[in-house]
This record gives sequence, C-alpha cells and structure tokens, in this order.
Amino acid sequence: MSVIRNQALKSKVMSAEDAAALIPNGANVGMSGFTGSGYPKAVPQALATKMEVAREAGDPFRISVWTGASTGPELDGELAKADGIEFRLPYNSDPIAREKINSGKMEYLDMHLSQVAPVAWQGFLGPLDTALVEVAGVTEDGDLIPSSSVGNNKTWLDRAENIILEVNRWQNPALEGMHDIYYGTALPPQRVPIPLIRPDQLIGQPTFRVNPDKIKAIVETDAPDRNLPFAAPDENARAIAGHLIEFLKNEVKQGRLPASLLPLQSGVGNVANAVLAGLNEGPFERLSAYTEVLQDGMLDMLDSGKLTVASATAFSLSPEAAADLNSRMEQFRGRIILRPQEISNHPEIIRRLGCIAMNGLIEADIYGNVNSTHVMGSRIQNGIGGSGDFARNAYISCFVTPSTAKGGKISAIVPMASNTDHITQDVQVIVTEQGLADLRGLSPRKRAQVIINNCAHPDYRDALRDYYDRALKNSYGLQTPHLLNEALSWHQKFVETGSMKP
Amino acid sequence: MSVIRNQALKSKVMSAEDAAALIPNGANVGMSGFTGSGYPKAVPQALATKMEVAREAGDPFRISVWTGASTGPELDGELAKADGIEFRLPYNSDPIAREKINSGKMEYLDMHLSQVAPVAWQGFLGPLDTALVEVAGVTEDGDLIPSSSVGNNKTWLDRAENIILEVNRWQNPALEGMHDIYYGTALPPQRVPIPLIRPDQLIGQPTFRVNPDKIKAIVETDAPDRNLPFAAPDENARAIAGHLIEFLKNEVKQGRLPASLLPLQSGVGNVANAVLAGLNEGPFERLSAYTEVLQDGMLDMLDSGKLTVASATAFSLSPEAAADLNSRMEQFRGRIILRPQEISNHPEIIRRLGCIAMNGLIEADIYGNVNSTHVMGSRIQNGIGGSGDFARNAYISCFVTPSTAKGGKISAIVPMASNTDHITQDVQVIVTEQGLADLRGLSPRKRAQVIINNCAHPDYRDALRDYYDRALKNSYGLQTPHLLNEALSWHQKFVETGSMKP
Repeated sequence: MSVIRNQALKSKVMSAEDAAALIPNGANVGMSGFTGSGYPKAVPQALATKMEVAREAGDPFRISVWTGASTGPELDGELAKADGIEFRLPYNSDPIAREKINSGKMEYLDMHLSQVAPVAWQGFLGPLDTALVEVAGVTEDGDLIPSSSVGNNKTWLDRAENIILEVNRWQNPALEGMHDIYYGTALPPQRVPIPLIRPDQLIGQPTFRVNPDKIKAIVETDAPDRNLPFAAPDENARAIAGHLIEFLKNEVKQGRLPASLLPLQSGVGNVANAVLAGLNEGPFERLSAYTEVLQDGMLDMLDSGKLTVASATAFSLSPEAAADLNSRMEQFRGRIILRPQEISNHPEIIRRLGCIAMNGLIEADIYGNVNSTHVMGSRIQNGIGGSGDFARNAYISCFVTPSTAKGGKISAIVPMASNTDHITQDVQVIVTEQGLADLRGLSPRKRAQVIINNCAHPDYRDALRDYYDRALKNSYGLQTPHLLNEALSWHQKFVETGSMKP
Repeated sequence: MSVIRNQALKSKVMSAEDAAALIPNGANVGMSGFTGSGYPKAVPQALATKMEVAREAGDPFRISVWTGASTGPELDGELAKADGIEFRLPYNSDPIAREKINSGKMEYLDMHLSQVAPVAWQGFLGPLDTALVEVAGVTEDGDLIPSSSVGNNKTWLDRAENIILEVNRWQNPALEGMHDIYYGTALPPQRVPIPLIRPDQLIGQPTFRVNPDKIKAIVETDAPDRNLPFAAPDENARAIAGHLIEFLKNEVKQGRLPASLLPLQSGVGNVANAVLAGLNEGPFERLSAYTEVLQDGMLDMLDSGKLTVASATAFSLSPEAAADLNSRMEQFRGRIILRPQEISNHPEIIRRLGCIAMNGLIEADIYGNVNSTHVMGSRIQNGIGGSGDFARNAYISCFVTPSTAKGGKISAIVPMASNTDHITQDVQVIVTEQGLADLRGLSPRKRAQVIINNCAHPDYRDALRDYYDRALKNSYGLQTPHLLNEALSWHQKFVETGSMKP
C-alpha cells in the first residue's frame, strides 16, 4: 500500500536521480534530519554521484546544506566525500564533513538550534532554493506526515521555492499523530506568547501544511535511520550518574526541587545516556522530559514508567532501539511528542518549564567556563547544538564529563578554556567521575577551589592548584585570576607532544 | 506633606542609625538600586559608619549585598570603603568596590540581570535577611510606590524576613502610576506565559504589595539619585552611530526590518548614548524601546517624539537630565514604564518583541567572541549586566565600541578574547568608528576577514592579518584558526609594557 494517500501527488513520484537533477549548482538546500533521524536518504546520494562526476570533469558542483542538526552518512558523509558542500549549518557530527571543515575545505556555521528557523524567516541566511525533506507519508488532503525528526522542516517547507519529498516506507505509519507542529510563530511585531505550559501539551497539529504547487518531486524510499550505537555505561559514566542523582536527591530534600523533579533535558552521547540509565534505577518517579532528542535511556525510562512523557524534536537512538521503537510505535502514542526545534529548544519554554539541563562538554576551566565545541580551541568537534538554548534558561544547568580524555592525556579541567561556549553564568553544576561541583552563588575564586577539588583528575589536580595559587599572586586582576602567558600552555603542550600531562 | 499616607506605618519612622542597627553582622541584605537610581541613601551610610567603628575595634562587621545592578557612592562606595561587603551580586560599577574585588578583598558574583530574581526564589542564594528599599511613597493602604528604579525590589520585599524602607521625598510624586509591577511570576511547574506583547503594555499594578508586619523601620530622606554625567558624543561616537544607522536603513530597505524598526535596547555608557543621539537625528519615526535603562539619549528621543514609549527597569541619567525629568515627570506618564528587571530583561519577552540590541564591549576577537567584563582576562570592569539577556535573544545583536582604548594602546579587536561573555552565535554586528562588520550567516573564517577589515584600527590591522594568516597555516584545526602560544600575547604585552602596539 502506498503511503502517499493523495492522488494528485502520486504523479510526482520519480527516481532519486531525476529528483537530484532538479537541484542546481550553488543552491541553498534545506534538508530534514536531526541527530541521525528523518534525513533524506536517496536524493543526497544521487546528488553526490552527480557531484563526483562534475568534480572529475573539473567543473565543481557544490551546494549549501541547512538542516535541523546532524544527519546520516548517506547525507553529510556522501556529500562531503564528493566535496559537494560549500557551506553547512547549523550542526554536524559526520566525520568526513568534520575533516573537510577542519582542513578549511568547507565553511561551517555553528548555530544555536533554536535560532535557525527564526533567523531564516528574518531573511538573514538568504533565499532557500529547495527543501529536501523526508516524511512518513502524505495524507488524502496532501498534508505531510512528519518522519522520525521534525527539526526545521516546517520552516524549510514554508520558505523554499521548490520542494522535494522523500517518502520513507520504513518509518512506522503509527508515527502519524505523534507530532505537534505549531503554526503560531510569526515575525515581530506580530509574535505572541507560545501557549505551552506542560511537556505533554499539544499546541499545534499533527502534520505539515504544504503548497502542492511547490512540490517538484517525490521519491519513495524504504531505509532505516542510521545512528551510532551507544556504549554500555562504564565505571566513570556510572559514577557521574551517581553523583548527579545524589545532588538531585538533596535538592528535593532541601525543598528546592519537586519530588518528581522538573522536565529533564539531556544532551547526546554516552555519558548523558548513562545518566538516564541511572535515573531509571533511581528514586524519582513520574518524571518528564522536555528535550531535544529521545535517546535509548529515555526509551527505557518510558518503558519502565519512570518517565511519563518525553517531548523532543527527534529520535537519537541506537540501531537496536530505533528498530525496537519502530516495531511498537503505537504503544508510545501520547507519551512521545515530536515538535519543531524552534519549540523544543525555545528559551521562552525552557525557562518557563524550568528544565534540568544535562549536557556534555569538551573542557571546563577552573572558573567554570565551558567549551563544548572546539578541541584545542580551533578544531570543531560537532557544534553547540541546543546546549546554549538549554544551559542559559534551565532551572539548573549541569555539565557532565569524564575528568580526562584520550587515555588520560587530556584533562577536562584546564586553567583557561581554549574556547568558551557556556560562560560561568550559565554553568551551575559540573560533574565528573571524581565528584560534583555545585557552583551556585559562588564567586570565581570560590568556584576554582570547588572545581579543582571536586572535579579534576588526581593526575592534574596539583598542577591546577599550582596554576591557581600562582595566578592569585601574579594576576593583573583578582576577580578571575589568570597568568596570560601560561593560561593556554596545557593545550599548546598537547598540540606539540600529544599529552597535557604535567 | 508626608509621602507616607498610611497612618499605621508612620509609627515606624526612625533615624537611619536606628534602622542600620537592625541589620546584623553577616546578614544577606537585598537593596534597591539600579544604575544609580532608586538606591537607599541614608541607611547604608549609617551602616558604613558602624562598620568603620567595628573594624577599628578589630571586630569586622560585614554583610552580603544583593541589588538590582549598580547603585551610588552612598551605598557601594561607602560600604566598600568600610570593608563592609563580604559578598556582592549581581553588578557593580563603583570604583572603590571594583578595587576591593580586583584586589581579592571582596567576593563578587557577576550574574545575568534577568536571573537574579528567579534564582533567589529558587533558593539558590540562601536566605534573605533584610530588604532595604527606597520608595517614592506609601499609599493609604500601605502599598509601596516604587522609586526611580524597580530592579529586584519586588523579590526582595517578598522574600526578606525584615524590611527597612527609605522614603525619598526628592522623587517626584508623579512617579506614582508609572511602574508596572507584574505579580504573575511563579516557580515551575506553575509558570505561565508572560502576557506582554508590546513595549507600552501594562500587565501588572503600579505599586508593590508588602506585608506590613515585616516592615521594621522607615527612614525619611530627601536626596537626589547620583549618576555620572555623560560625555558629549565625540567624533568616534558619531562615526559609530552613523555606521549603525546606515546599516539599519539598509535593513529596512531590504525588507528585513519594519520602517519603525523593532524595540530598541541600548546598553549603558557614552557610546550607546551617542547612538541614541544619532537616532534622534536620523530618519526613523515612531520608535519604541524595550530596554533595561532609560538614558539621556532616550529622554531626548521621547521629547522629540522620535520615541513613542520607553519600557525599562530604571533611569540612568546624568545629574542634569535626572533633575530635568524629575521636574516634569508628569509629562511622561504612559510613555515611560518601569518594570521589575526579571521582566525588562526576560528572554521570553526580548525574543518575542524582537529587540534590536546595542551593547558596548571591552574587546572582541577576530571571530566575534565578545568580552564585556574582564580587562586583560582577569580584572572585572563592571559586569555582564543585561547584555547576555539581550544579545542572545535579540532580533539583531549589535556591539559598539571605539576600535582602541587608552589613547590607542589597547586594541578593541584582538586575536583571541581574554575572556568571553558573548559567544560568536550571539554577536551579529560589530561596529567601531572604522566601520561595521555584518557577521550574519558567516563562518568563523569569513567573520575574521570582515572584522579585521571593517572594524580594526589601522595601527593594529596588519598585525591581526598577520596573526590570522599564520594561524591559517599552523592551527591545530581550521574551523577557528588560532596559534595557542600567541593568542593572548597582545594582552600579556599590555600587562608587561602598558601597550599592545605592534
């Protein structure tokens, strides 16, 4: 049975190659896709093939790719391999694209995920030539049933001159009705309050509206979302989860958090997933999530009943969990809600709901400035994603990380962050396997002591204390003591020798 | 005629010395005051005298001072001089207090101004022993008529165990009715949308409610707010204003801004004031302001009719403008609205209204990271204030600065910011007297070229280009090219020699 229920649109079905031919050299293309879910899987590959041919003929063919967040290897990987991406926004985790960016061959704009849609509407990114969007189906009326991510699709469909759809039969038809597409956004001065006050609330409609005249091609696919597996929680991850849960228990005891906490936000990655596993075994009941992505750990919490509802913009599941969820999607109706990322990540709603934010980091400095994007200050890892949306507006903003990386050769706690994404004002709690630093209400000098004592790895603790003590004597000012000729020396040492070790 | 219209409360009038005696050693005291307006003027001085005596007796008496933002010399100056401030939040511009902070004798927590009230309600700052608040009067019913700033007064009055009021007869009684005190805030999960959709809208009530049993003392004063004069706009400031106005004109022309722009936010200081002067002579009509403070420039714009309404949390006026406004307050009824700072600076409302943010900076790096707080990375100047609330949520976030400081010995554009308060994602436009860098949609490498070419002073431009060119060859990664052993060398050179000059 076709998942295209609208008769008129059936006539627009064509091959991926024919659809790819509709995208011209130099186009700005808004694609679906958020953390490996719901990205187009056929047309980008056909386009990459075309780009390879063009490149070999000495006539480069390149486009600008705007997405929700990261996608899959069939999109970013293939297009980057073909040197076909001139410019990319707002987030990337593909290793081939990352290498192109860090070698200066691809322009990359790392954006707050909540801001992509508004900024596109404001006209600050230029015209959008084509929307290339995966959907789960088309209704009788020609509305589009969203796929396993929503991301910026509403905006791409509204703003683009031309639309190419991929209808992916792999996605469970039960997805229909699990999305909440809010059409109440506007440009100022017409903006009004977003009425959402609970994570389980529906404020929009289940489908995307679309102008059928703009749809130039529909490509049928049957292909799974490709995500990376999660590592099983190791000892460090379990220790981090333990510290954080103890902290949250005490906050409840002190009357600073309700017994069922406040809506959880959890970043992407193994440590974040381990924290969720810890919460699933922990003492809290009737939790909720208002977050960006639904990972394996949240699916387990929905299964166990610990989590009553999860609001997100996308799935970010291991292949096993994705297949599992896809096989029994119907069970989660009303308990999983996927929204546009400008809503899932909206500062207005995050601050109103009072989310408990839990995000990863690359490094934090002794004053609690957090770098979550640039390795050694210059090499982009993925991007800031939604961490800035959540950290600044959260009820409590927590950052979690093992205290070292690269087998101990990199300290996650450094004298000065080599790049800052989250300023001290936005970082209330830092947790490593060593312990937890509660930084609320502390001046920078007090923060330094708590971070060094509670979070730094013993291999680096003395060197951090030594830096801080000498900075106290010789810094230009003592609000945030630093030795400028030494502040980045740990990073420089790593670049030169492959280790920060004292 | 008394401005205390409630008979019962009249019995609580006492001397400043008697009121100061009610504040114990070690207390957390929430004081009124925002950018030199509406701060208590008598009790802090009486307290400072007590502290001096205690200090001489070798028995230090110190308190924690929480305010709205900066205050006046009678508060921060006197208490700091007496070594009477153990801990200070969330903003300071007093030179004596600054010196104590930077010499390590006072703990200072620099906070986003929108977050002070919520964080106090969340219980993260500990108990509030006393509220010491200047008001313009007390109504028959015992409600409090706010003074020339609102700041966090509502929160201090609600949260404090004891209340001391200063009733300042100097403030024009016509202030009554010019405030909008919103009582709809709550702790999550009870938070609801804030209904404000226009800068001129009233969503609250004109007075503070207060539990009369908590009022332990009322002190009558008759003293002006003491603010610093503004410098007349110099050539650089006029050039900056000119570049920014050209930019805004083009945005209107391109259809990216309405003809009457969007609500303006302007930071504190001479350059910001000069931009307002430029707007007052510029082509835009029927402007509005949704901002933190009302400076001289905005008062002129209200007088000329260029500005229809200004919503703020405080006045920040020169002595002449303060006296002028105070003498004809009645004329501005309905056109000046003062609100609690959690509302004037609320991300929800700033993003909804689409404010055009214009803030100053200490330095920006070639990628557009902005340092607005720390001189040479360690010495606090004032604090982040509301710049983070506005920059991240603005429709367009602009930063303005002369390209050099200290007679040319400091470049405002540096290879790497020695501290970051505003990350590249939150910095769309940088303006110096040299020109304007429109950074929207640009990757870091593109940003570097525009910032160096358009904003850097000619004395430093070649050295910046040289740094960037060599970083392009030798950086660890090329997303944001840096030479780590050289990135902060300009600052180190200044610390060692008093000049960054190449």
